Amino acid sequence: MSKKRVAIIGAGPSGMAQLRAFESAEKKGQEIPELVCFEKQDDWGGQWNYSWRTGTDHYGEPVHSSMYRNLWSNGPKEILEFAEYTFDEHFGKPISSYPPREVLWDYINGRAEQSDVKKYVKFAHAVRWVDFDEDTKLFTVHVENLRTGETTSDTYDNVIVASGHFTFPNIPNFEGIETFPGQVMHAHEFRGAETLADKDVLLIGASYSAEDIGSQAYKMGARSITYSYRTKPMGHGWPEEMEELPLVVRFEGSTAYFKNGEKRDFDAVIFCTGYKHHYPFLPSSLTLQSANNIYPDTLYRGVVSEKNNQLFWLGSQDQWLTFNMFDAQAWYTRDVILGRIELPTAEEQRAHMDQWLERFNAMKDEFDQIDFQCDYVKDLIEQTDYPMFDLDEVANIQRQWLQSKKEGIMNFRDATYTSVITGTKAAEHHTPWMLELDDSLERYLSEPDEDEARQVFRGQIREGQAR
Amino acid sequence: MSKKRVAIIGAGPSGMAQLRAFESAEKKGQEIPELVCFEKQDDWGGQWNYSWRTGTDHYGEPVHSSMYRNLWSNGPKEILEFAEYTFDEHFGKPISSYPPREVLWDYINGRAEQSDVKKYVKFAHAVRWVDFDEDTKLFTVHVENLRTGETTSDTYDNVIVASGHFTFPNIPNFEGIETFPGQVMHAHEFRGAETLADKDVLLIGASYSAEDIGSQAYKMGARSITYSYRTKPMGHGWPEEMEELPLVVRFEGSTAYFKNGEKRDFDAVIFCTGYKHHYPFLPSSLTLQSANNIYPDTLYRGVVSEKNNQLFWLGSQDQWLTFNMFDAQAWYTRDVILGRIELPTAEEQRAHMDQWLERFNAMKDEFDQIDFQCDYVKDLIEQTDYPMFDLDEVANIQRQWLQSKKEGIMNFRDATYTSVITGTKAAEHHTPWMLELDDSLERYLSEPDEDEARQVFRGQIREGQAR
Repeated sequence: MSKKRVAIIGAGPSGMAQLRAFESAEKKGQEIPELVCFEKQDDWGGQWNYSWRTGTDHYGEPVHSSMYRNLWSNGPKEILEFAEYTFDEHFGKPISSYPPREVLWDYINGRAEQSDVKKYVKFAHAVRWVDFDEDTKLFTVHVENLRTGETTSDTYDNVIVASGHFTFPNIPNFEGIETFPGQVMHAHEFRGAETLADKDVLLIGASYSAEDIGSQAYKMGARSITYSYRTKPMGHGWPEEMEELPLVVRFEGSTAYFKNGEKRDFDAVIFCTGYKHHYPFLPSSLTLQSANNIYPDTLYRGVVSEKNNQLFWLGSQDQWLTFNMFDAQAWYTRDVILGRIELPTAEEQRAHMDQWLERFNAMKDEFDQIDFQCDYVKDLIEQTDYPMFDLDEVANIQRQWLQSKKEGIMNFRDATYTSVITGTKAAEHHTPWMLELDDSLERYLSEPDEDEARQVFRGQIREGQAR
Repeated sequence: MSKKRVAIIGAGPSGMAQLRAFESAEKKGQEIPELVCFEKQDDWGGQWNYSWRTGTDHYGEPVHSSMYRNLWSNGPKEILEFAEYTFDEHFGKPISSYPPREVLWDYINGRAEQSDVKKYVKFAHAVRWVDFDEDTKLFTVHVENLRTGETTSDTYDNVIVASGHFTFPNIPNFEGIETFPGQVMHAHEFRGAETLADKDVLLIGASYSAEDIGSQAYKMGARSITYSYRTKPMGHGWPEEMEELPLVVRFEGSTAYFKNGEKRDFDAVIFCTGYKHHYPFLPSSLTLQSANNIYPDTLYRGVVSEKNNQLFWLGSQDQWLTFNMFDAQAWYTRDVILGRIELPTAEEQRAHMDQWLERFNAMKDEFDQIDFQCDYVKDLIEQTDYPMFDLDEVANIQRQWLQSKKEGIMNFRDATYTSVITGTKAAEHHTPWMLELDDSLERYLSEPDEDEARQVFRGQIREGQAR
């Protein structure tokens, strides 16, 4: 019998985790399937592979990454650390709890480079269409080599969707928005807050994108930042230049009218209105349709498609945990494909999902979500040889993190936490986040003296904002 | 024998022309095939269906239209008039030679609404993948209903690609562009020049997008406009705030360094670097790979795919002529499908293309291109019942148009031409283009008195620029 063939779509943190999972088994003597990983970008890293481009990329494909210059982790790194590749191992010294994008890219890249999995990745290859043949029980995957334009079609026993769900913006329409003369963009297209200096900025949304882009705008000297929320305000202790108003009702030129009767004039509007699950390469018989939440229905154990048990999803949840959750999912997926884990009947799968959905539907707040996701990951890890780590303590760190934002939304990134894997206490960073305008790896890892550390490197900065 | 089935991809001016072509035959008693037109937007009009959105749309699909607020036709309407539906018929009075976008949308919509072809269009349907079966000689077209997410697959005898090729931006990389702190966008994402007031703006490119967006920026009060050309400057008599420099070599922060050693600081960079032929729904065995030029190879008579004579392309040429060329192509395509025109052998097709390619390759300038395209359209019309019109005079109008831009790049739109179809002389517009900031149909068709006409409606305007 010939080897199973597995197609992995996407070489971001999830796809890389999947490759690493198989490699880990192979190193322990297990025979593994033929693997092909299709990545539409020229390099791996997914969201963490920053691009200055917006809209479509140099191949005409929708730009994948939503990250921007000056993006620093918005949660402590201690909640995303790989259990089998630690920050200590990668950096050789303690680093701070909230590293910038490039540092985290370096970390995930480091693990992948240490292994030999790049050989499985076809970069600049976009998956165009996936079919499933009920007779042969095989998927046909149609792929375009974006460099040559050549398309090929091959069959696979399994398909693993690791293409992410923070790439296709959700952008509601607002009456009159077409008359707004200033910049209008979605967070996905935001690449830096420098152009917002001295501007009155409206951010529509009340979740992570809004919170962080607003803080960036403040850091870069926006004149005012107004948040518009649909359900409830974030309620942080914002500086006086920032306020939260209810939903925009309509625009008229540069004026926005809000639900509470107030109006304001703006220079720029940024939609921080989330992302869509969007898989244009999948027929509706296979695809996942879900809002962005922490337990998308129709995925057994959050990974196996109920519609077709040969099809898997990684990282399709809204995420309190990231890299280590993807690992847990990848290890589980691997073991299903290797036959080490036997799936229960469709009815049992449904009952299992319903049980989790019941808890999901009963959640009251963010703390419940944190516990839910930590329990979910714990449950997955228990079934594989992925190293277990203290998920209760990870939940605890997350609670402290949320509390720290309440205490100081502009300096919560200066706090430090202790790794649950290595016990290493994070380093105090040389420069408070509010003063640091250089987000490069080089600068981050440097050890400037105190004066240098407080030097302003480029652009302007609000005075008196450092701790 | 059952009816032939024809799939038309796109309901822009080309797709609409194709529907109208079949309808015209049907009205004359001809039996026509089953038609299905898939349009990913919610309305027809293609490029002319303006959207305030950029990047991806509310369905997660790449935004189709590259048009912006304040876009007025950049060529006289007399070169694009339908031979079978005139401006006089639509507007009931003479209008000016350079109408704004909404007026032209109204015109193409008017012709389509007059007929009964909307019933063929499935709006909000994106074609995902097209296969051809060599045994059955049928195409399978996989389509997603974007409103429901449901995908369906049906077979067709013919596929007509009318999805356009001014949607996927070509964006070269420049060293250091990722450090540029200001706005960076491609013309495709440009929606209005209001944000460029008092800004130093760099436009990379030397074709229509550059010319027009630069003029818009000037009209809206940009402090300076710098064009960067790869091959040669446009060489218009620009106002003193505008200059042309050779290609950018690199960026460093907000500074651009040019090939001739000069450097400038900018607030915004707009790539006017053209568009790609990009058909993500087609396998390489069927697709068209070409630069944007007026005779893409592998299309017999500019429409029939050499790779598969059941497959057609409309409007795939770079365009001196537009609506009426699409008509000529649609009528020809219709007649091939109806069997009224018999295609010659593959060798004869190749020889015919080579003959045109020879002339194509010998072209020296824009005037040669104009003659080429007018001859091409004349040749197509001669083979169908589409009403012939005076293409020599159309070529003549195009030469005058180019000349008028040399004489006054900021007021060439105030000139008027005479219709070759109706003999109607265009009306002098009530407001010079340079003073008109309201691009609405309502304003355009209104008859303000002289004082009103020179009133400035919104935004700011350069003083002393009106004739």
